[in-house]
Amino acid sequence: MIDVNESIAALDWSKEPQGLYAPIAYALSSGGKRLRMQLVLAGCRLVGGNEQDALPFAEAIEVFHNFTLLHDDVMDRADVRRGMPTVHVKWNDNTAILSGDQMLIEAYHLLEGVSANHLPELLKLFTRTATEICEGQQYDVDFEQRDDVQIADYIEMIRLKTSVLLAAALQGGAIIGGATAAQQEALYNYGIHLGLAFQIQDDLLDCFGDPQTFGKAIGGDISCNKKTYLLLSALNNADAGQRAELSRWLAQTAPSAEKISAVKELYMATRAREAAEQAIAEHTRQALDCLNLLPDNDERKQLEQLAQKLAQRKS
Amino acid sequence: MIDVNESIAALDWSKEPQGLYAPIAYALSSGGKRLRMQLVLAGCRLVGGNEQDALPFAEAIEVFHNFTLLHDDVMDRADVRRGMPTVHVKWNDNTAILSGDQMLIEAYHLLEGVSANHLPELLKLFTRTATEICEGQQYDVDFEQRDDVQIADYIEMIRLKTSVLLAAALQGGAIIGGATAAQQEALYNYGIHLGLAFQIQDDLLDCFGDPQTFGKAIGGDISCNKKTYLLLSALNNADAGQRAELSRWLAQTAPSAEKISAVKELYMATRAREAAEQAIAEHTRQALDCLNLLPDNDERKQLEQLAQKLAQRKS
Repeated sequence: MIDVNESIAALDWSKEPQGLYAPIAYALSSGGKRLRMQLVLAGCRLVGGNEQDALPFAEAIEVFHNFTLLHDDVMDRADVRRGMPTVHVKWNDNTAILSGDQMLIEAYHLLEGVSANHLPELLKLFTRTATEICEGQQYDVDFEQRDDVQIADYIEMIRLKTSVLLAAALQGGAIIGGATAAQQEALYNYGIHLGLAFQIQDDLLDCFGDPQTFGKAIGGDISCNKKTYLLLSALNNADAGQRAELSRWLAQTAPSAEKISAVKELYMATRAREAAEQAIAEHTRQALDCLNLLPDNDERKQLEQLAQKLAQRKS
Repeated sequence: MIDVNESIAALDWSKEPQGLYAPIAYALSSGGKRLRMQLVLAGCRLVGGNEQDALPFAEAIEVFHNFTLLHDDVMDRADVRRGMPTVHVKWNDNTAILSGDQMLIEAYHLLEGVSANHLPELLKLFTRTATEICEGQQYDVDFEQRDDVQIADYIEMIRLKTSVLLAAALQGGAIIGGATAAQQEALYNYGIHLGLAFQIQDDLLDCFGDPQTFGKAIGGDISCNKKTYLLLSALNNADAGQRAELSRWLAQTAPSAEKISAVKELYMATRAREAAEQAIAEHTRQALDCLNLLPDNDERKQLEQLAQKLAQRKS
């Protein structure tokens, strides 16, 4: 069984110029779950493939994901990632831009390791997915300035920004493992629903999570008026009085515990919290449905457990 | 014969989200010579290939080149490119970062159009070249902080930053046209020497060019103490008195016409100007030597003329 953290740690960034490569080593050193890499290998094994064959694609997906985090952190002016200073803080913006660019190129370099017969298909899948993620990021930025965002728009944004990479990870692994088109599609769609449930759960935890287990401050999304599933549902469901109250709080841009507490109350009164919980349950159910189209083996059971675990996670 | 500007103009950027794609359309609209794209097509035709087959690779190289300009302009805080406001000025830094990322991904998307039998080879060439260009950019940044840069370091930096893309353009076109390994190597090396001559000529023009024909202010490199071929040659050749005088000017960081004029005098007195002119002539000669290994046809004559023209250019 491949140890994903060991595989990433074995990539060699000791080459020159270190000004370019040291930030890449740093960005990849902080770990995380390596979920996307795990999904590539799981997709390959589930359809009976040898996970070693899927390793280059898995590494490419993981390096790509960390590239997006690096550039997102510059754009969001985020100072900390997984408890460590971000690259643009530890070095500077220009380093984060250039080393990030090189990480994206390194992801494509890793793709060279896939077998020639799968290369055209995997290259297309990878590039289409990368494009969708940039589009999702742009929609996320656009939504900050728009006041007509609907829940369907939000779902499409998080599908692009979060889900397609999980889906492509699974499908890519499945392609390498020799999956049928139907199996590939089932795994891809499982990944889409897994990602949607994951992201809506993230919105819920940011608002209703336990600060002890969640690991970051609660209410950040409320403070910055982020158009989450909760806020969009609340705006949808609110009666005239609730809408006026919500609007008053949205107009108050200074962070305050009072605002967080009042908006949380409104999320409950408008049943937005319930709507989010239902959406998570629904996408988890759809993810599990997709798995029914696949061979009933241990790998499938693990993906079932993953979907159930993510829907119940507290951090 | 392919019209390179028409081909680039025909790429469709009207899709959504326009916040992502409009800056790409803008960055590609300002023209320029499309030299790298021309070189791909020329490399293909020279060895007897059909230039239509080389179009996707040519477009990928051109889009990639414009991606590097977009991100370089952010990092250099350059406000104007080809007479137009740069993307980070017309929009903002985040847009320049994200749309630039998407341009790099679009370059790989264009690569999908090359024939499957050439794809692995061209993908490797493209990605290796992209990596070298990032390395060259990093060395360029590193050199600003170093006071031990030698002429050989500088040549290696401009080889990476400028030459390898011209070389890879020619080689890629040649691969598609069915070139032998020896022909590919000859065209690659021609591109390397062409790029070195081009860049050293750029250093010369920045210092000794005619402001009327050069199109930008003269002496910019001197004002910011840029470690050009001229400065490194002058430091190499200077006697004790000249070195002391040069050091005094380097210590004066405020821009002044007096500094520009004095350093130009020193470049002549130390024969740095002569050394740069000789280096250009030498790399032009080596570029022409490489062409002797190739079929003696009209395409080859055009590459001969290109090398001679670049060495004599005034702008």
